[in-house]
Amino acid sequence: MVPADRDVTLAALALQTRAVSGTRAPLPHVVIVGGGFGGIAAAKTLAGKPVTVTLVDRNNFHTFSPLLYQVATSALAPDDIAPNLRGIVRRSRNIEAHLGRVLDVDLDHHAVIVDNGPPIAYDYLILAAGSVSSDFGVPGVATHAIPLKSLEDATRLRSTVLRRFEEANANPALIDEGALRVVVAGGGPTGVELSGALAELFTKVLAKDFKNLDVSRAEVVLVEAVPAVLGSFSPASQREAVEELEARGVQLRLGTPIARVDGDGVELTDGTRVTARTVVWCAGVRANPIADSLGLARTRLGEIVVNKDLSVPGHPEVFVVGDLAAATDRAGRPYPQLAPVAMQGARHAARSIMRRVRGRGRTTRFRYFNKGVMATIGRRSAVAELPLGVHLAGTLGWLSWLGLHLVFLMGFRNRAVVFLNWAWNYFSWDRGNRIIIPDPD
Amino acid sequence: MVPADRDVTLAALALQTRAVSGTRAPLPHVVIVGGGFGGIAAAKTLAGKPVTVTLVDRNNFHTFSPLLYQVATSALAPDDIAPNLRGIVRRSRNIEAHLGRVLDVDLDHHAVIVDNGPPIAYDYLILAAGSVSSDFGVPGVATHAIPLKSLEDATRLRSTVLRRFEEANANPALIDEGALRVVVAGGGPTGVELSGALAELFTKVLAKDFKNLDVSRAEVVLVEAVPAVLGSFSPASQREAVEELEARGVQLRLGTPIARVDGDGVELTDGTRVTARTVVWCAGVRANPIADSLGLARTRLGEIVVNKDLSVPGHPEVFVVGDLAAATDRAGRPYPQLAPVAMQGARHAARSIMRRVRGRGRTTRFRYFNKGVMATIGRRSAVAELPLGVHLAGTLGWLSWLGLHLVFLMGFRNRAVVFLNWAWNYFSWDRGNRIIIPDPD
Repeated sequence: MVPADRDVTLAALALQTRAVSGTRAPLPHVVIVGGGFGGIAAAKTLAGKPVTVTLVDRNNFHTFSPLLYQVATSALAPDDIAPNLRGIVRRSRNIEAHLGRVLDVDLDHHAVIVDNGPPIAYDYLILAAGSVSSDFGVPGVATHAIPLKSLEDATRLRSTVLRRFEEANANPALIDEGALRVVVAGGGPTGVELSGALAELFTKVLAKDFKNLDVSRAEVVLVEAVPAVLGSFSPASQREAVEELEARGVQLRLGTPIARVDGDGVELTDGTRVTARTVVWCAGVRANPIADSLGLARTRLGEIVVNKDLSVPGHPEVFVVGDLAAATDRAGRPYPQLAPVAMQGARHAARSIMRRVRGRGRTTRFRYFNKGVMATIGRRSAVAELPLGVHLAGTLGWLSWLGLHLVFLMGFRNRAVVFLNWAWNYFSWDRGNRIIIPDPD
Repeated sequence: MVPADRDVTLAALALQTRAVSGTRAPLPHVVIVGGGFGGIAAAKTLAGKPVTVTLVDRNNFHTFSPLLYQVATSALAPDDIAPNLRGIVRRSRNIEAHLGRVLDVDLDHHAVIVDNGPPIAYDYLILAAGSVSSDFGVPGVATHAIPLKSLEDATRLRSTVLRRFEEANANPALIDEGALRVVVAGGGPTGVELSGALAELFTKVLAKDFKNLDVSRAEVVLVEAVPAVLGSFSPASQREAVEELEARGVQLRLGTPIARVDGDGVELTDGTRVTARTVVWCAGVRANPIADSLGLARTRLGEIVVNKDLSVPGHPEVFVVGDLAAATDRAGRPYPQLAPVAMQGARHAARSIMRRVRGRGRTTRFRYFNKGVMATIGRRSAVAELPLGVHLAGTLGWLSWLGLHLVFLMGFRNRAVVFLNWAWNYFSWDRGNRIIIPDPD
C-alpha cells in the first residue's frame, strides 16, 4: 500500500515515536482511527493505562449520530450534538487527538498514513472508522439525494427543507413540482425518526411560520423496499410505528424499492413516480472506504472480516470495531450496526490490547450484550425493545428514549443544552433552530 | 434602475398587491428591507397596526451581531444568536417575511426588486439594510482577511483559528510562519472584544486541548491606526481596556495603520511586518452596496442622505434607518453606527409612516437618545459608559454587559441557551463550541 522508498522513513519513525513517549520505558502506542462511538469508548477504556494513545479523526468533534435527524429538523443546533474531541480526552494525559484524514494504513510497517503530517506509527491499532451512506447501485442517489450520516449532511438537509418552503412561498407554482414534498428512502430507525420529525416540523411549526403558504400540501413520503418499517423490531413495535407515522400524516410506501432518483423525485420499481424536490437517503450504509485499500478479507458490504476477538487475521495487533467490522455471534449471525455494538466492541478491543501489553495470554471472543433498540416517532411517541422481552411504547417509550439519549450524549454542557432545547420544543411546540445556512457567494 | 418594459408589470402588480390585502379597504403595504436591529424594530412597531408589512432579508434569521465574536471564539453556537425571522414576526398577523436578495429598488414605481420572485410593490419603504465590511482600499483585505459582520464570517473565523492550531499541532514548523498568531485589525468595540476573547480562548482552553503544542507561543496582535482603542469611549475606559487587554497577553500596535494584508500576515505603514496566518478585519464598515444603485445622494461611506425625519429627499414614502442612513443630530454630527441608533430610528420611521397613513400631518425630527456604549474585554471585565456620566468597569461593567445583552437578545429560547452557555463557560473555564466545519469535499 505504501511505496517501498517510504519503508526506511517509517521504520525510523516507529523507533522515534517510541523514543519520545516521555517515560523511562517507552510505552506501547495505540492508534485509534475514528472518533465515533467505538473510537471514544476505546479511548476512555485506555485512559490512564500504561499506553500512549492517539485518536485520529477527520473532524475535531464527535458526532452524536442518533440525534442527526433532530438537527436536520431544526430541533437542535449542530453544535449541540458535536462535542469537541480534544475536550473529551482532555483529562487523559496519555491520550492525544490528531485531526487528519486517514489515507491508508501500512499494516506491514505498523503506520497510519494521514493527509497532513508524517505517518503515525503504532504498536496496536483500533480501526473504528464506521460506515458511510451507500446507494446500493440505485442511479441518481449520489447526485440528487441527501444522506444523513454526518453533521454536514444534517445541516445541509435542514437548509434544503427550509429553503424549499421559502421558494414555494415566493413562487407557489413550485408546490406542484414537489417543493413541499420530502421523500425519505429507508424505513429503518433513521428513516422513521426523520419522517416523524419532518411531519411534526411541517404541521406544528412551518404551518405557523408561513402565513400565506398552504402548508397542508406539505408531505413526507417514507419509501421502504420491504413491507415493514423498523425491520429489526418486533411486529408489535412495527405496527405501532406505522400507526404513529400515519397519525402524523406520513405517507408510507412499503414493499416497493426505489428504482432511481432524479431531479424531480423518485421512481419506484413498480413504475410509479413520487414527485419531490427533496430526497433523503437513509436506505443503507456500507463500511468506510478506508477498508477497501487494506488488502484484507471483506464482506459484500465492505466490512473487514475479523477473528473472534475482533483482531484482524494475520495481524494480532490490529482490531476492528463497530460498523467497520464483520463481527458475528456464536451462531455466525452478524451483529447489528448499532452504537452499543461499536462501544462494547471497542472496550473489548482495548481490554484485549491491555492484556497483550501486560503479557496476560490469550484474548477472548467478543460477545455483544444486547441492551435493546429504540426509535422515536415524535412527540410522546417512541418504541423501545429492552432485554427480557420488555416492550415500551407511547409516552413511556418516549421518556425512556429521551433519558437514554441524554445519558449517552457526551459532556455536561451538551446534555444541558439538549435538555433545554427539548423542553423548549415540547412546551412551546416550536423548533428553535430553523436556520438556512447561506450558500457561499 | 429598472428597464422600461417592466413598468407596466410593476404598475399592475402594485394595484394587485393592494387588491389582495385581505380587508375591505386595501391596507397600505410597508416593505422593510433588512432583518437586523432596525428592520425588526420597525416590524415590531408596525405589528397590529392598520398596514400590511413585508420584511425582506437575504437570510431567514436575524443576526445578533454584538455576539458574533463569541461565536468566532467558540463560546456560543451560531444558532444561539440567530433567531428565525418568521418566528420573530409569527404572532403578528399583518407581517410576513420574504427570504430573498434585494437587487434593486424602483423608487419611481414603488417596488423592491428581489432575486427570487416578482417585484414587491410598496406604499411605504423602510430601508434597513445595514452596513458591510469595508477595506478602505487597503490591498489584500478582501483576499486574505476575514471580516466579522455575518454569521458565516463568525463560523468561518472559528474554523480558521481552530484549524491553524490543528495544523501547527501536526507540523510545529508552521508556528514560525504565524500559524498561532492572529492579527485583529481595528480597535473599535468589535476588535477589542474579539481580541480579549481570542486571548482567553488560547490561554484557558486551547492550552489544555493541545497537550503537545506550545500554545504559549500563540498571540493576538491588535492593530489600530489611531493611538487609542475604543475611540468613541472616554479616556478612562480606553485606558482600562488597554490594561485589561495587556493583562490577557494581547499585543497592541496602536497608532500605526495597516498598509497591506497578504498570505503571510500584515505590513504596517511604518514598514514593520506582523507574520500571521489569520487576519481579522474589524477596521471599518461602509453602507450596504444596495445604496449604490438607487441614484440617491450619499456620503463618502455610502450612507444615504436623509431628511430630519429619516425620509429620503423627494421620496416622502421612503425611510432609511440605521447604518444605511446618514442621520445627524441638530449640530450636524452623524449618529454612531450602533444597534440602538438603528432601533430608535426604525421606530421613528414606523411611527412617521403611521402618522402619514392616518393623515395626521407632519413628521418630526429623529433624535437619538444615547443609552450608552459598552465593550467587554473578557472574563469579569468590561467597560460601560452610561447616561449621566456613569462609567462602569471590571466585574460590575461585565455583569451589566451580560444582563443587557441577554435582554436585547430575541426570544426566550435563545436567551436561555446563551445564559446556559455563559454559565458553563464561566464556571468550567471552557468554550463548548469548538467546531471546525469541514470544507465541502
